[in-house]
Amino acid sequence: MKGTRITDLFGIKYPIVQGGMVWCSGWKLASAVSNCGGLGLIGIGSMHPETFEEHLIKMKESTDKPWGVNLPLFYPELEKIVDLIFKYNVKIVFTSAGSPNILTKRFKEKGIIVVHVVASIYFANKCEKAGVDAIVAEGFEAGGHNSPLETTSLVLLQDLQDKISIPIIAAGGIGSGSAILACRSLGAEGVQIGSLFACSKESSAHINYKNKIIETGEGGTILDIKEISPTRLIPNKFTEEMNSLRTSCASVDEMKNLLGKGRSKKGIFKGNLDEGEIEIGQIASRINSIKSVEYIFKDLINEYNSQLNFIRKEL
Amino acid sequence: MKGTRITDLFGIKYPIVQGGMVWCSGWKLASAVSNCGGLGLIGIGSMHPETFEEHLIKMKESTDKPWGVNLPLFYPELEKIVDLIFKYNVKIVFTSAGSPNILTKRFKEKGIIVVHVVASIYFANKCEKAGVDAIVAEGFEAGGHNSPLETTSLVLLQDLQDKISIPIIAAGGIGSGSAILACRSLGAEGVQIGSLFACSKESSAHINYKNKIIETGEGGTILDIKEISPTRLIPNKFTEEMNSLRTSCASVDEMKNLLGKGRSKKGIFKGNLDEGEIEIGQIASRINSIKSVEYIFKDLINEYNSQLNFIRKEL
Repeated sequence: MKGTRITDLFGIKYPIVQGGMVWCSGWKLASAVSNCGGLGLIGIGSMHPETFEEHLIKMKESTDKPWGVNLPLFYPELEKIVDLIFKYNVKIVFTSAGSPNILTKRFKEKGIIVVHVVASIYFANKCEKAGVDAIVAEGFEAGGHNSPLETTSLVLLQDLQDKISIPIIAAGGIGSGSAILACRSLGAEGVQIGSLFACSKESSAHINYKNKIIETGEGGTILDIKEISPTRLIPNKFTEEMNSLRTSCASVDEMKNLLGKGRSKKGIFKGNLDEGEIEIGQIASRINSIKSVEYIFKDLINEYNSQLNFIRKEL
Repeated sequence: MKGTRITDLFGIKYPIVQGGMVWCSGWKLASAVSNCGGLGLIGIGSMHPETFEEHLIKMKESTDKPWGVNLPLFYPELEKIVDLIFKYNVKIVFTSAGSPNILTKRFKEKGIIVVHVVASIYFANKCEKAGVDAIVAEGFEAGGHNSPLETTSLVLLQDLQDKISIPIIAAGGIGSGSAILACRSLGAEGVQIGSLFACSKESSAHINYKNKIIETGEGGTILDIKEISPTRLIPNKFTEEMNSLRTSCASVDEMKNLLGKGRSKKGIFKGNLDEGEIEIGQIASRINSIKSVEYIFKDLINEYNSQLNFIRKEL
C-alpha cells in the first residue's frame, strides 16, 4: 500500500485512520492503530476533560508514532479540551459535528494539522475555505451520528470529484481491503475505519456490545432517531420504544425525553443491549469475530494487495 | 475496458447494462445502449402487453446487437408478457421485484439468459439455487423501488464477496467511470446504470423530468413511501402531502389512497412535477445536462481508463 498525500500529511505508513469513536477509542485502541502504521485517534466525545488528560498521558507512553484526537464541536466544555490539546502538544486534530470555522484558525496558528468530517460538497468547500488540511467524507453507511442528507460513500466520493483540492479520507461502509481500493479508485487518498476497530480486542467497548455486532447480519443496522439527530445503530428495545412514540405521533420533546442522556454509554460501554444505543456502521454485517488491531491491519493490507494484483492483471 | 464473465454471458463489448426503467427505457434508449456496446433493456414495468409488442418489433429493427428486457414479477398480466418473450425470441431477461423461482426455470428451458435483481445475500443465494445466470446487486442509492434493508452498494458488494459464484452486476449510485472501476475492485463483473440513461436524450421521459434531474444537487433525493414500498425520488408536493399524512398518524390505507395509481407515469412520462413521482437515483446530484447515450458511453469509458491508468501507476 503506497503512500498518498494523507500518509505524507500525518507521517504514517498506511493511509488508514481509525475513527475517533465514543466509548471505544481511548489510548489503548488508538495507540495500537498507530503502532501498526495507521493513524489512531482518541475519541474525546465520551470523555470528561480529566479522563481525556489521563488518555493523553497514557497515549504518549504507548506509542512514538503519529496519533491524533477527534473532537466533536458540540462538546460542552470545549475550552478545557482545547487547553489540554495545547498543553499536551497534540499534533493532529479531527473536528466533527459543527462548523470548521469554530476552531481551525486557532489550531493552525499552533501548527496543528486539522481535519474536519463532512457529508456534503457544501461542507467540504467550507472546510477548504477555513484552512482545513484534509477532510473525512463520511457516507450514510457510517455508525453513530450521521448526516440527514443520507448520501452514501459511493455517491459522496463521486460528488466530491474535482470539487476540492485538499485530500479526502473516505469513511462509512469500509470493511475490507477491496473497499479501500474502491475508495482509492474514487479519488480518496485515505480511509477512516470505525466499525472494524469498535469491535477489536483493543476497543474499550463492552463485550456484550462486541458480541452483538458479531451476530448482526445484513440489514442489521438502521439510521434512526432522525427527528433528533440521525444515528446509525442496531435496533433494540429502546429503538422500539422510540418507534412506538413515532407511530403514535408523539412530539419531538417526548422523544427527547425518552432518549434522555447517556444512551450510548449504556449501550456501548455498559453493555446494556436493551436500554442503550448500540451504535455501529452498516458494515457490521461483515464482522464475525473480535480481532486484534494487528490482525485487522494484516487482513486489510493482504486483501488490498491481492485485489490490486487482480486489477492490474485483469483490467 | 476488458471483458468479464458478464460481457461473455451477453456477448457485449462493455460490461455496462442500462437499467430497465419505467417510462424511460423503451426501444429507443435500449437500442442506443446496445449499439454503443452495452446491454440495453426494455423496461416492461410501464408497458401494456400491446405496447411491449410494439417495442419488441421496433427493437429488432433498431439493433443487431444483444439486448434484453426487464420484467418486474408483480406485473398483472405476466403470462401475456411471457408469451411475447417466447414469441419474439427474446434472449436475455432481467427479472425483479419477486422470487427468482417464479419464472427462471421456464425461461432457462427455452435457453433464455436470466438475471435477477437483488439487494441482499439472502436473495442472491436464492437466485443461485434457482439457476439464475447472474445477479444485479442493487444498493440503497438506486432510484425508484428499493429494498427496505437500505444496504448501500459499497456494503452490499462487500457482503456478497465469497458468498456466491455466479457473476455480479453492481447497481445503485454509479455515475462515472471511476465508480465502475470501484465496483470492479469490489468484485462486480459489470455495472447496471439507471439514472444517467433516464436523463439521456434517448430516454422517453418527459423534458420536465429531465430538467428537474439536472437542477437536483446533493441530498436532492430521498427514499420515501416506506410504509407502502420504499421508493427513491425527488421530493415534491405529492411527497409533502404523503408526509403530512405520516406526521398526522394517518393509516397505511390512507397513504395508499393518496398514492393511488399512475404516479410514476404522471411524474416521469407526463412531466407533472407536483403530482407525479419523480423517481431517480441518488447520483442525480452529478447529472448536469441531457446527453446522448453515445456521449455517456464515451465519458464513462474515458474516465474509467484514465482512473485505471492512475491506479496502475500510483498504487
